[in-house]
Amino acid sequence: MVLKISQRGQIPPFIAMDVMRDANERAAQGKDVFHLEVGQPSTGAPRGVIEAARAALSREVLGYTDALGLSALRAAISAHYARTHKLSVDPSRIVVTTGSSAAFVFAFLAAFEPGDRVALAAPGYPAYRNILTALDLVPVELPAGAGERYQVTLDLLRAHGKGIDGLILASPANPTGTMISAADLASIARYCREHGIRLVSDEIYHGIVYGDPASSALEFDPQAVVINSFSKYYSMTGWRVGWMVVPADMLRAVECLAQNLAVSPPALSQYAAVAAFDCRDELDANVRRYAENRDLLLRELPKAGFDRFAPSDGAFYLYADVAHITNDSEGLCHRLLHETGVALTPGIDFDRGRGRSTLRLCYAGSTSSIEQAVARLKSWRP
Amino acid sequence: MVLKISQRGQIPPFIAMDVMRDANERAAQGKDVFHLEVGQPSTGAPRGVIEAARAALSREVLGYTDALGLSALRAAISAHYARTHKLSVDPSRIVVTTGSSAAFVFAFLAAFEPGDRVALAAPGYPAYRNILTALDLVPVELPAGAGERYQVTLDLLRAHGKGIDGLILASPANPTGTMISAADLASIARYCREHGIRLVSDEIYHGIVYGDPASSALEFDPQAVVINSFSKYYSMTGWRVGWMVVPADMLRAVECLAQNLAVSPPALSQYAAVAAFDCRDELDANVRRYAENRDLLLRELPKAGFDRFAPSDGAFYLYADVAHITNDSEGLCHRLLHETGVALTPGIDFDRGRGRSTLRLCYAGSTSSIEQAVARLKSWRP
Repeated sequence: MVLKISQRGQIPPFIAMDVMRDANERAAQGKDVFHLEVGQPSTGAPRGVIEAARAALSREVLGYTDALGLSALRAAISAHYARTHKLSVDPSRIVVTTGSSAAFVFAFLAAFEPGDRVALAAPGYPAYRNILTALDLVPVELPAGAGERYQVTLDLLRAHGKGIDGLILASPANPTGTMISAADLASIARYCREHGIRLVSDEIYHGIVYGDPASSALEFDPQAVVINSFSKYYSMTGWRVGWMVVPADMLRAVECLAQNLAVSPPALSQYAAVAAFDCRDELDANVRRYAENRDLLLRELPKAGFDRFAPSDGAFYLYADVAHITNDSEGLCHRLLHETGVALTPGIDFDRGRGRSTLRLCYAGSTSSIEQAVARLKSWRP
Repeated sequence: MVLKISQRGQIPPFIAMDVMRDANERAAQGKDVFHLEVGQPSTGAPRGVIEAARAALSREVLGYTDALGLSALRAAISAHYARTHKLSVDPSRIVVTTGSSAAFVFAFLAAFEPGDRVALAAPGYPAYRNILTALDLVPVELPAGAGERYQVTLDLLRAHGKGIDGLILASPANPTGTMISAADLASIARYCREHGIRLVSDEIYHGIVYGDPASSALEFDPQAVVINSFSKYYSMTGWRVGWMVVPADMLRAVECLAQNLAVSPPALSQYAAVAAFDCRDELDANVRRYAENRDLLLRELPKAGFDRFAPSDGAFYLYADVAHITNDSEGLCHRLLHETGVALTPGIDFDRGRGRSTLRLCYAGSTSSIEQAVARLKSWRP
């Protein structure tokens, strides 16, 4: 008897990872590839982190840590909130997780019952929607456009968010890089409080901004679940270490979920991450590189026929409207990879409807690779 | 408005981790602690793994890997099946995961619909039951006793497994260490095939056996999901790297789940784990230490009043019946930690009913720490 594959397990791919796999296969054949598809810095972890990892490799047994994470790391994250946001966050409310990915799973399981409705902006990070679906939750998409700067607004919430139990915010956002102002964040938090909506704030791109700094939902809503990671600003994607700040009354539920679903986050990554907060010079230099790459793309891409972008306030993405070129963004990305070596992510990863005519470019690579990618795109003809 | 914590998110703790947290707090106060509670070797990773990690730290950017894992590691795992089990397993069916923990989440989501019933032996690893519950699946406990060597049998399946969709096996098992013979595994696999039951085989303790080697479900059932890890035999718990072997028709579902729920397993741990298969001398020496510790406990514990054990065929556990001492195993473990410094796990972690009068001892520590723990237990009076 052939056994079933479950319906609920059949979530859509994270297409950026599919493109990366195809790009890696192309590279393995000796062909050149410019990685603008996956949202990660081309740089590794800062030197201080590597040194801390090297020291821990010699010093520590590297067994399971406490399920909530190493106390030293939880204390360092608490100090980070004091320094960066002037916020006092008790280390006991800070949970170290295996990247932000595990934090989303724990947050969704702890906050929502099966069938609960959780709103989020479209376009948005596809894993929000796909994790929700896999966990029997109902994603409610708020169709955010240029008029809303691709972000959640009170108008969108009122129009499309009836009867929701949760709301996911991301500022700076993936795939657009747009941000929510402190005033708007405060209004949305107030709306959530009044309507009994659990706010989940994805703050993974904090620290990578080109104008005003980002505000944390912790400033406005003590019941928010705040999720962050060492992957982006701290340039540690493959280390798989992130964190969440949870309301005190949710802590034990999250601890039990972490014990059972993960046992502990990776030990070596945790010892290394403690050092990340002391590496701001090197990390800020990365951000200056992103800013340079962003300027370069905004200046040169129009010459390649790409000239309509969401305002990239932060993160390291340009979200390009390519409606004048195609309504098959996946086909376009496939052609571009194979005809130019430039790997991009089709907009359908982030917005299943309107994303047929959008693309996401990640500019966290080296400036020279971005220059070469742009040159390829400029010489390419649809 | 105070927001809810979901019912479904409120799963029981993994009590061994709670005990470890208490034991670590005691140690932080300068008191002595003997860690026999958590199932992990006191040794770190073998030298070859540490060297490989050190080399990768210098050489690699350590970004996201392919969601299914590094090809070099998938190939090394495939070669391991050829060498150890004379099985040809296509590397494309091997999925590297963040410990076996992530593999269970992916397997349960990919194989079962919400409400599906999944059978498992009681006593058993508590995370099976707790992950199933968190994912809206229904654990069906098969009450295995001394007569069944605490393992799943056909009789138990026929008596308690009506209408089940899945079955979890573990051999050697946690918390007992008992094993299923190749012949019994073949019969159970046949029963599953005839009844449309998806077999999930937890083979994490393979390699740690004191008699016959363990058989893999891959030898008997091509539709089984097999889960394993570098945590136990390979002595790499805190590295969080494991794997699963999935049937070809489940691969894409698991890949999409991995992309969305995890992005990728930890990169450094993967580079390091490739070297683990070349460290058998050091790892087999660990197993000889476990065997020595096991003999020591079986000889000395009766003098402390603990004299009824499940047959510890493999793994590094003794499961002790302490009905003559208590029907409150949690209270007993609490007292033992505070009065002797010996940390043990109460049986209710593994068997919520009958576990009130059982304890689990992990003997993966150093022989001297096991000796000292036994001395403390011998001088303790209930």
